[in-house]
Amino acid sequence: MEIHAAVAKINKYATSESGDTLEIVERPNGGISIVLADGQTSGKGAKIISTMVVRKVISLLAEGVRDGAAARAASDYLFTERSGKVTATLNILSADLQTGTLVISRNNPSPVFLARRERVECITGESVSIGTSRNIRPSITEFPLENGLTIIMFTDGIRDAGDRTGQSLDICTLIEAILEDRDPSAQELADTILGQAIRIDNNRPNDDMSVVVLRTKSTESDQIRRMTFLLPVPPMLIPPQA
Amino acid sequence: MEIHAAVAKINKYATSESGDTLEIVERPNGGISIVLADGQTSGKGAKIISTMVVRKVISLLAEGVRDGAAARAASDYLFTERSGKVTATLNILSADLQTGTLVISRNNPSPVFLARRERVECITGESVSIGTSRNIRPSITEFPLENGLTIIMFTDGIRDAGDRTGQSLDICTLIEAILEDRDPSAQELADTILGQAIRIDNNRPNDDMSVVVLRTKSTESDQIRRMTFLLPVPPMLIPPQA
Repeated sequence: MEIHAAVAKINKYATSESGDTLEIVERPNGGISIVLADGQTSGKGAKIISTMVVRKVISLLAEGVRDGAAARAASDYLFTERSGKVTATLNILSADLQTGTLVISRNNPSPVFLARRERVECITGESVSIGTSRNIRPSITEFPLENGLTIIMFTDGIRDAGDRTGQSLDICTLIEAILEDRDPSAQELADTILGQAIRIDNNRPNDDMSVVVLRTKSTESDQIRRMTFLLPVPPMLIPPQA
Repeated sequence: MEIHAAVAKINKYATSESGDTLEIVERPNGGISIVLADGQTSGKGAKIISTMVVRKVISLLAEGVRDGAAARAASDYLFTERSGKVTATLNILSADLQTGTLVISRNNPSPVFLARRERVECITGESVSIGTSRNIRPSITEFPLENGLTIIMFTDGIRDAGDRTGQSLDICTLIEAILEDRDPSAQELADTILGQAIRIDNNRPNDDMSVVVLRTKSTESDQIRRMTFLLPVPPMLIPPQA
């Protein structure tokens, strides 16, 4: 079995910093966690908040703290640091090889989609953003790691795409259509969802947008771990000699 | 301009844990850093050491500490924690968008390769592993970020591949041959080097092996940031129902 994860991420149109922060971290007892936070508003201020939250979560996960406890700690930390005045959404998606489970932690009103083969379910249920009061808990979904699973999570820039242009993205139908049509790579799936969201915002993303896709496959594995990273260099940052 | 990075990593044959730890982290002022440590020996003990080192470095980088200072801090930290009895190699490769430079920090006798187009240079020069004395410093190479650069770094499992079978890997010639032949993706280049190293170890890697490749390309970018992760699940960890 192999676990394939992919991320596609773009800044709000004409901003140089994204309020969405995402890190992938190795779990100390085996597996990976993907941590995605979206700080209130956009630009520099939002980036500081989301970075602070993601840093706190990954440092706790790296010490072996469980996902739910890490999310609660990040909420209390943000509440204390910013006196309850600033909020952020937080999603943690973990493939835990110690327990043999996938764990989805949501502090985010946006849903998470889960597909077994081509059947797509939507994980909604009430979920509160972190930072605005004491005792905020994540909503947690945990199930056995098995072949043929697809998990898709994203920030509100994807959910609310098209709001300004009077269009909307039916993400569930889109995912079903792609999965029925072919067996996409995690990156293809993430790119397609992000591409559609950008398109209905008339190619000028109205907010920071991030999509995370995780798929489990029954491929016989060569046991090589692989990771890639593509970082666009914004035109104004390209050194003149380049 | 786009920065493409890729990692390929395998455990020593028949061990479930790798002594090599690698994390990719976003720099707070723009860009990415790739941090690779190899703890003394292999298995669980080495994993604890390399994780400790990488964690320390990425938490400092995330606070805006410069690469050289983070490497020195990690060395002092390991020296203090383990009373100077344990060593680790440490490489930090950063694409720093604030300074517009690539920064290579080595605390590792293994060389780092740098290619401009197809011309391959070998960055050697004395370099000491961390943790065994006070005042250990990294050897640092810094140069402007420009198109057509390729940087390749790896742990000693790659450098010493074939030792047992009386073969050896001429990494410089291999890189030159691949770059002259085609314009490989960062992942293809990492996979080819790792594949050759495994082959001359008779398909049973004699040590943990990690290869990191970073390439800069002049491609006109869609400004979408992408990341992928492929995690093989070892056969003994696949849950029975899968």
